[in-house]
Amino acid sequence: MERVHNFCAGPCTLPVSVLEELAAELPNYGNSGMSLIEMSHRAALYDEVHMETLQLLRQLTAAPDDFSIQLLQGGASLQFAMVPMNLLANDAEAGYVVSGTWGKKAYADAAKVGKAYSAWSGADGNFTSMPSVEQLDLRDGSRYLHITSNETIGGIRMPDFYDIGVPMVADMSSDYLSRPIPWEKFDLVYGGAQKNLGPAGMAVVFVRKSVIEAAPEGLPAYLSFATHDAADSLANTPPMFTIWATNKVLKWMQDHGGVEGMQRRAADRSSRIYDAVESSGGFYRSPVDSNHRSHMNIVFRLRSEDKEPVFVSEAAANGLENLAGHRSVGGIRASVYNALPDESVSALVDFMAEFAARHG
Amino acid sequence: MERVHNFCAGPCTLPVSVLEELAAELPNYGNSGMSLIEMSHRAALYDEVHMETLQLLRQLTAAPDDFSIQLLQGGASLQFAMVPMNLLANDAEAGYVVSGTWGKKAYADAAKVGKAYSAWSGADGNFTSMPSVEQLDLRDGSRYLHITSNETIGGIRMPDFYDIGVPMVADMSSDYLSRPIPWEKFDLVYGGAQKNLGPAGMAVVFVRKSVIEAAPEGLPAYLSFATHDAADSLANTPPMFTIWATNKVLKWMQDHGGVEGMQRRAADRSSRIYDAVESSGGFYRSPVDSNHRSHMNIVFRLRSEDKEPVFVSEAAANGLENLAGHRSVGGIRASVYNALPDESVSALVDFMAEFAARHG
Repeated sequence: MERVHNFCAGPCTLPVSVLEELAAELPNYGNSGMSLIEMSHRAALYDEVHMETLQLLRQLTAAPDDFSIQLLQGGASLQFAMVPMNLLANDAEAGYVVSGTWGKKAYADAAKVGKAYSAWSGADGNFTSMPSVEQLDLRDGSRYLHITSNETIGGIRMPDFYDIGVPMVADMSSDYLSRPIPWEKFDLVYGGAQKNLGPAGMAVVFVRKSVIEAAPEGLPAYLSFATHDAADSLANTPPMFTIWATNKVLKWMQDHGGVEGMQRRAADRSSRIYDAVESSGGFYRSPVDSNHRSHMNIVFRLRSEDKEPVFVSEAAANGLENLAGHRSVGGIRASVYNALPDESVSALVDFMAEFAARHG
Repeated sequence: MERVHNFCAGPCTLPVSVLEELAAELPNYGNSGMSLIEMSHRAALYDEVHMETLQLLRQLTAAPDDFSIQLLQGGASLQFAMVPMNLLANDAEAGYVVSGTWGKKAYADAAKVGKAYSAWSGADGNFTSMPSVEQLDLRDGSRYLHITSNETIGGIRMPDFYDIGVPMVADMSSDYLSRPIPWEKFDLVYGGAQKNLGPAGMAVVFVRKSVIEAAPEGLPAYLSFATHDAADSLANTPPMFTIWATNKVLKWMQDHGGVEGMQRRAADRSSRIYDAVESSGGFYRSPVDSNHRSHMNIVFRLRSEDKEPVFVSEAAANGLENLAGHRSVGGIRASVYNALPDESVSALVDFMAEFAARHG
């Protein structure tokens, strides 16, 4: 099969072995005479996949038993609403780190649902860095601090998680399972599946059970974490295909060193691209604060910005796809999520050198 | 490929041609060197599938231009909350027909979100019939009347849609696209995909544009129909695989006579099974009011209820799967959704006669 190098920021590349297994098993699952996606979500064969997926997530992330793991629909976008609906009872307020497009959206929804304030905004710096703990404007009695651990558009990440004495809530959509999670600092961690975990159509939510117990009464069923906790995410029909594919991706991760393996891989691979930028004698440059450079979304510019479209189209002609920066900021963006093969990074680094030599 | 006869109530059987196409195209879509589920949801190749799906839904249902068609996550369950959140502003109240498990769930969520009242309940009759228009307790000034056009567990349907001078909202999850929709009577029609439309992981919502304009301000982004209307259901990453599969199912429907074809098929096929029940000399019996028998979920009992598990297991041994009634009511249930082959209905009717002859 002819594969391109796919640097898409999400939905993104999946392990080719996962795609091949899905294709082979799709028409007739486990010799049952039907597809897994034609089965009742109460069927034993599906239940095995579902429960194993929850278990794989717990193993890979080392989430303690007092966290409920939930497979929900609506992506991170629905969590922007569900999190404050479930956590901001009794006039409690929460701080939001507005570190880019995603932090901004999370904050906007929280301010609609409950009391939320901006604990820091990167707007003045064009979202090219994350705040230090000293820069946070954290109000006394805050119920939680919401962070976005990695912003896909700006290409920035939090290198460490704060020690602030207030529980944190993290949107980890774009660096999920590529770094360990210090659970004691968090009340809730969530993220869309469609970057490191699987196809689009799901969010994976880790929520502390004491948080579920303290949630306000009277939430609609789907919007309450209690509903999904009580039913192992089977209160209604779950997104079975996405869960099935995620199950396979998680096993692939396990076979490739787990979260530590993914973390090492991400550090190495992003370094190779940042090094290619830094050693280009100014042909390429990074707009991002060097302490906050993402290991997942490597954003860079060309000295001659008018050559950026040429870079993108020549790269595509060479089988390197989806290298244009987000339409709101332009430039180049290479997303190197877990499933991207190392060869794709090598191909990019080679192409960068070759392009610079030709156009330098 | 060895296929069983799959009478599952949902998720349910899909056209075998759709499964085979999905499997063949999954690893490398349109010779792009990647899977469709690895593409950006802004990519041209995906956009074509997405927009065509919306267009196929409009063509097949004949939905007028003043209805927005939305492809959302969370299934019908999330709509139980979104509908009253968007429609019950300014203390408006809505009536709910509680015709079974699904109507009950819709009502419970609406009562949490806004002012809702029961306009009728089938609880006293064990949910074996639907109300006539005269039986409805419809309060003056009701914003809408919510109905469930088909209840999968009781195996009942509304044979006609009411003329009541109040806009209706319908959950059509289990008879979607198997009957025409008289749009002038409705403000909103919704349903989960996983019965007649495709795999699990999506709801299709038709909502009148004037309803969207009149919705309250301040709803969180994902929970507002306005968000999805403005973005053609691409405000966030959509459930791409489910949409892709649904696209193929909709084309299959078009090739098989469209909604009228599906309606005829459903009437014929359900009649064949009800006839087998009625002509069994009392060996089988229908617990459902004869005017409200579902064309999708055919529920029946054996005179000797202790033989029902034998019926289910012998049927399975003969390749007729998923015939047990819902665990809350027992008995037998044969779901004959659009994609079930006619041969499966023939096989069931033959098995029923043969089983009755052996055990009668």
